[in-house]
Amino acid sequence: MNVTVRGRTRHYRTVTFDGKRNAVLLIEQRLLPHRFTLVATRDYHETAVAIRDMIVRGAPAIAATAAYGLAQGARAFRGHSLPGFTRHVESVFRTLQAARPTAVDPVNAMQQVRAVMATGRSVEERQALALAAAEEFANQDVRHCEAIGRQGMFLIREGCRVLTHCNAGWLACVDVGTVTAPLYAAESAGKRFHVFCDETRPRSQGATLTAWELAQQGISHQIIADNAAGHLLQRGEIDLVIVGSDRTLGRTGEVANKIGTYTKAVLAKRHGIPFYVTIPLSTIDWTLKSGMAIPIEERDESEVLGAWGVVANPKLEIQSRSRRRRTYVRVANPSSHARNPAFDVTPAELITGIITPVGIFKPEELWRRRRELGYRG
Amino acid sequence: MNVTVRGRTRHYRTVTFDGKRNAVLLIEQRLLPHRFTLVATRDYHETAVAIRDMIVRGAPAIAATAAYGLAQGARAFRGHSLPGFTRHVESVFRTLQAARPTAVDPVNAMQQVRAVMATGRSVEERQALALAAAEEFANQDVRHCEAIGRQGMFLIREGCRVLTHCNAGWLACVDVGTVTAPLYAAESAGKRFHVFCDETRPRSQGATLTAWELAQQGISHQIIADNAAGHLLQRGEIDLVIVGSDRTLGRTGEVANKIGTYTKAVLAKRHGIPFYVTIPLSTIDWTLKSGMAIPIEERDESEVLGAWGVVANPKLEIQSRSRRRRTYVRVANPSSHARNPAFDVTPAELITGIITPVGIFKPEELWRRRRELGYRG
Repeated sequence: MNVTVRGRTRHYRTVTFDGKRNAVLLIEQRLLPHRFTLVATRDYHETAVAIRDMIVRGAPAIAATAAYGLAQGARAFRGHSLPGFTRHVESVFRTLQAARPTAVDPVNAMQQVRAVMATGRSVEERQALALAAAEEFANQDVRHCEAIGRQGMFLIREGCRVLTHCNAGWLACVDVGTVTAPLYAAESAGKRFHVFCDETRPRSQGATLTAWELAQQGISHQIIADNAAGHLLQRGEIDLVIVGSDRTLGRTGEVANKIGTYTKAVLAKRHGIPFYVTIPLSTIDWTLKSGMAIPIEERDESEVLGAWGVVANPKLEIQSRSRRRRTYVRVANPSSHARNPAFDVTPAELITGIITPVGIFKPEELWRRRRELGYRG
Repeated sequence: MNVTVRGRTRHYRTVTFDGKRNAVLLIEQRLLPHRFTLVATRDYHETAVAIRDMIVRGAPAIAATAAYGLAQGARAFRGHSLPGFTRHVESVFRTLQAARPTAVDPVNAMQQVRAVMATGRSVEERQALALAAAEEFANQDVRHCEAIGRQGMFLIREGCRVLTHCNAGWLACVDVGTVTAPLYAAESAGKRFHVFCDETRPRSQGATLTAWELAQQGISHQIIADNAAGHLLQRGEIDLVIVGSDRTLGRTGEVANKIGTYTKAVLAKRHGIPFYVTIPLSTIDWTLKSGMAIPIEERDESEVLGAWGVVANPKLEIQSRSRRRRTYVRVANPSSHARNPAFDVTPAELITGIITPVGIFKPEELWRRRRELGYRG
């Protein structure tokens, strides 16, 4: 999407590849929204570190980064021995996989790249195929997001007030995003609407990343405390809720997403407001039979007990560049502890529709439409 | 309640009076939970500033502070002229009232003190009566909170897991608190239970004040993000919700309280978990006929866009005393704005019971029981 830095607007993807330097270029997301910088990883080890340290985050974005990282590693091989090359590529694969060991998308992406590579007959040919396959993976992600945008944009009526939760924007993908895709498509079509971004404690991705994205695209928005959505729904100030999904159960239509998603779904239902989920097809889990079986990651309690931000006078804009360093403040009582479940599960009955690149479906339709949705069981 | 400072445990009220120094003693709540300090205001002007600058907050606590402040001002009068004394007292009254102009509790409290004072026949007698009336006002607040504790403690069963929102603890009252009263009473009775404190963004009173209070009393508790309560209810980890009230409609049973309260009530209802509200009788509004008529204060957006805390390494305890200064960090995207409604309204149908000093009532019973509840219409 377009980013304006010091008055100059340019198009950026979250992750791209510089063939000349054999470098993966990433937006340094840990500095957002206070500073926009690109990072170039010079070898696949640095790419793995970038994934591990969350310079890049979001399942589709780390999948594309791993795909490029595998190509980067393959292209660094010197020699003509195919067995030696294959051993090297396996080592690159394992290094990149270990960067986020529980994520499944990077593994799927790298398997795609490896399968394409295997059709090459020389090291040189395989190196070229690796990069082409990684580029294709990234382009495919963009096409899927654009398709989600086309499917979902008709939901954004003129004057619509939309609630979002967390960040399933282009920063989580290669470009365009999932939740944001219908918004950007509606914006391009000249529709006027307003977005309420849930802050999304404890990591505040709504207040930081989603708000930054919407500001870059000039979309009207306001940040609200997670506590405020119920009140706004009660007073008739929200017309539509759109959220993302970390895992979508193909058999039941249940959706695991950022903690707090379930609460918004319950509130939307009570007030008769449509609640939509946008999903890349890669998040569909065709095996699990119940959302209650999804393990809910408990993250570090420091996320709940404090906040990251830039030291500022609450009345002043942050002025100097040097002060744009993020600082952690302990908010909570020093002797208290926290629970920090990172995700929750929303049952199908609370979901109006699931927006996919190939259509909008009722959650209970997913299983019946599984062939279209990529099920290979 | 008891506070332990450097290993020494002492009993403190939120507000007390030092007759010798003619000073109001306040716990400096803006430094909590990171530092516990008492502030002595040397004259009624300083007391008004302490109310205005929120050294003390919470309706019952600022009411008692204003009552003491009026006595403090009355006692500072030099001379024997009753008309001069009366003019002076009116001036003190107006100064203290102007400190929080929309609050009604300080005015009611000062009117009580003034009415008692008027029965004295000399300046000296009226000065003595003023202090006695202020002390009685504070003591009455404590007795009311203790009565709420006796009424509500039977709801806390052995092993119970309680969710609270915001701070309606002893720091908001003179002592004991309202939401916390049943908890402290149950603790004294030897019951074991666990409290989940909602962080309560944007001002985080749950993570700061409630957690600090519970820690001081040694009550088992954990802080959770406001987004997490729905998940814990869904997984059967919460047995009871207790919240406070800023305004309770005597005619309808609706409750206006800190933003996010309505959301917890909706979630509790969905999961069949009891939802109780503790109220001091002074919060009952006998005039309004609909909760939708309650004006919802929109506070400064800086509360939503950032957070106050103590700069810390998230892995380390805060070490040196000098570093315990609260700092504001801007969390959100610098170019984005926020909506910040401070309260919401919970309808009667979501409330299991209202815990008052004189009994627990269904919300729809308030009007029928209005004589017991202090209605003078």
